[in-house]
Amino acid sequence: MSEIVREIVVVGGGVIGLSVAWRLAVSHEVTVVDPAPARGASWVAGGMLAPVTESWPGEEALLDLGAASLDRWPEFAARLDVPLLTGGTVVAAVDAADAAQLDVLAEHLASLGRAVDRLTGRELREREPAAGPGVRSGLMVPGDLAVDNRELLRRLESAARRAGVRFDRRRALGVESGAVLLDGGVLETGTAVIAAGAWSAALHPALDTLVRPVKGEILRLRERAGALPLTRTLRALVESRPVYLVPRAGGEVVLGATQYEAGFDTEVTVGGVRDLLADAERVVPGIAEYGLTEAAAGLRAGSRDNLPLVGPLEPGVLVAAGHHRNGLLLAPITADAVYAMVAGEQPPAPARAADPARHVPTRR
Amino acid sequence: MSEIVREIVVVGGGVIGLSVAWRLAVSHEVTVVDPAPARGASWVAGGMLAPVTESWPGEEALLDLGAASLDRWPEFAARLDVPLLTGGTVVAAVDAADAAQLDVLAEHLASLGRAVDRLTGRELREREPAAGPGVRSGLMVPGDLAVDNRELLRRLESAARRAGVRFDRRRALGVESGAVLLDGGVLETGTAVIAAGAWSAALHPALDTLVRPVKGEILRLRERAGALPLTRTLRALVESRPVYLVPRAGGEVVLGATQYEAGFDTEVTVGGVRDLLADAERVVPGIAEYGLTEAAAGLRAGSRDNLPLVGPLEPGVLVAAGHHRNGLLLAPITADAVYAMVAGEQPPAPARAADPARHVPTRR
Repeated sequence: MSEIVREIVVVGGGVIGLSVAWRLAVSHEVTVVDPAPARGASWVAGGMLAPVTESWPGEEALLDLGAASLDRWPEFAARLDVPLLTGGTVVAAVDAADAAQLDVLAEHLASLGRAVDRLTGRELREREPAAGPGVRSGLMVPGDLAVDNRELLRRLESAARRAGVRFDRRRALGVESGAVLLDGGVLETGTAVIAAGAWSAALHPALDTLVRPVKGEILRLRERAGALPLTRTLRALVESRPVYLVPRAGGEVVLGATQYEAGFDTEVTVGGVRDLLADAERVVPGIAEYGLTEAAAGLRAGSRDNLPLVGPLEPGVLVAAGHHRNGLLLAPITADAVYAMVAGEQPPAPARAADPARHVPTRR
Repeated sequence: MSEIVREIVVVGGGVIGLSVAWRLAVSHEVTVVDPAPARGASWVAGGMLAPVTESWPGEEALLDLGAASLDRWPEFAARLDVPLLTGGTVVAAVDAADAAQLDVLAEHLASLGRAVDRLTGRELREREPAAGPGVRSGLMVPGDLAVDNRELLRRLESAARRAGVRFDRRRALGVESGAVLLDGGVLETGTAVIAAGAWSAALHPALDTLVRPVKGEILRLRERAGALPLTRTLRALVESRPVYLVPRAGGEVVLGATQYEAGFDTEVTVGGVRDLLADAERVVPGIAEYGLTEAAAGLRAGSRDNLPLVGPLEPGVLVAAGHHRNGLLLAPITADAVYAMVAGEQPPAPARAADPARHVPTRR
């Protein structure tokens, strides 16, 4: 077994902070600082692990990073004993512009050697009978996974506790070399890892304009008697608005997500719910018969280029934030990358594009 | 002061049961049986006290009953120290059929000597600036009131407790002359009053087919910065679907209500929420900017003729149920009617139409 070499403080107990802390706890004493661990944006997420259907020309580095993290997911999930949904993703287009956008995506993926199956509306409905006649065409992406984000967070927190991670419920006010400033104290530390999602910007001057909150509203639905069940993750473009439906064990379906940039606002709005329901119904008409059990909003941590920020900011201070819509997907590779950097080693190659030095001068 | 003459058991602690119990406690020992008092359908309600805008040709007895109860509301509210919204109701019509339906209502009310003001779309928007350009015409009903149903329930419960009413949290299984059967006991009683709303049907054979659950979904919204505030109760017909928006102190707005007859189902559905939001937005476009803070479903107690059932079923057993959409409005006159019957006196004249003897043979 590895020896305990020094104390590390991870600021933020969402999926990134918990994954990093759990990974580091193999060989370090780790403290996670968070007033409400296993919550935040990760709690509201849909749980898709879908780098391919999220990809877009110009974002090849993000696709490589996501694909490398997806490769790590089966082992990551197995160690946490959390099940994965393995049915792949169908992507549906509703109007002609949506279909044209899927053409661009399919051609882009083909140019990268990642061929996907184009589907007619009828072929798509054969694979996902809950899809309605308004679906014009689609894609099938077999390799995508999905996970129950809340189950994952619970498992991660308890795995971290079992590995010896301590939790400090005070609120972090700032991070500097050698110290994490808390509301009511200071934690002196060899290494601090800022993993506070959208709240990271306020914790270190180098992150000030690099991370911003991107509000997302998500609904939780429940199948009711008579409603056609959804069999796999369904993404769609509805008049250019992206929407997704992720089925969970037990008949739950997560429907998301809106995107607004409006500061640290987490109130669910009438307009957001109306759009999600209307768009979902265009793709899956039977959704009207589902129960609506929860509406919630979270704040993704947006970055300038949609790539996260994973790397050193100054001696003894690392950042692992800005994961935007991909926090769950990128958790395993982010944890591996931070672990390598703390050990003085090179992070996995695809993670190098996430170095914050691409935006700001950093002191190593 | 009156003397305590005998013990009365009221089955059901919603707005009707609590009002009856509070009224009877002046001169009787009263026990309310309810596992969750001050909840039920009354908790989910909108709080409109609006007999005129609810009226329809053929339902004159209900209008008389509602009007007589509305007259009692200012004193009822003052004794409970609960504020009333007194701005009246505007009723909006969206399409031509909706406008024609308002014409029928206006002519009907005029024939009863209850003139209301017909409004053009522009005149309606002058009275309620939050109404949008899609409103075609409308009515203004100055006398309608509204009350915060949850505040009312809290005040009623504490007023009843202060008046000496006792609460038994066991579930009632049945009512017969001289006894209320509970899950885990029997309460022997001189008089039982069945005021269990939609659940009343199962408590006495005479009510078996007379009261049925009518599901209603209601949303609670919250004004946000930038959204035009609603100044008074707004009802509307949107392609024949009724919808209402009731403003509350503090920026809350209650938006209701769907109507389904599907048994004792209280799950909020996607289709119900979608309809409420879409219809409300047709009338008040700015609603999209509001926060959505709660979605809930309740079960109204429907009767065959929309009139409640208030009166004796057999010696020592009275019913006060079947109030459908009008439980809050009809609470004061129902309490007065039950009080009179228990005292062996005639109930107020308009309450005589609610006698259950109109449907079933009853033994006095």
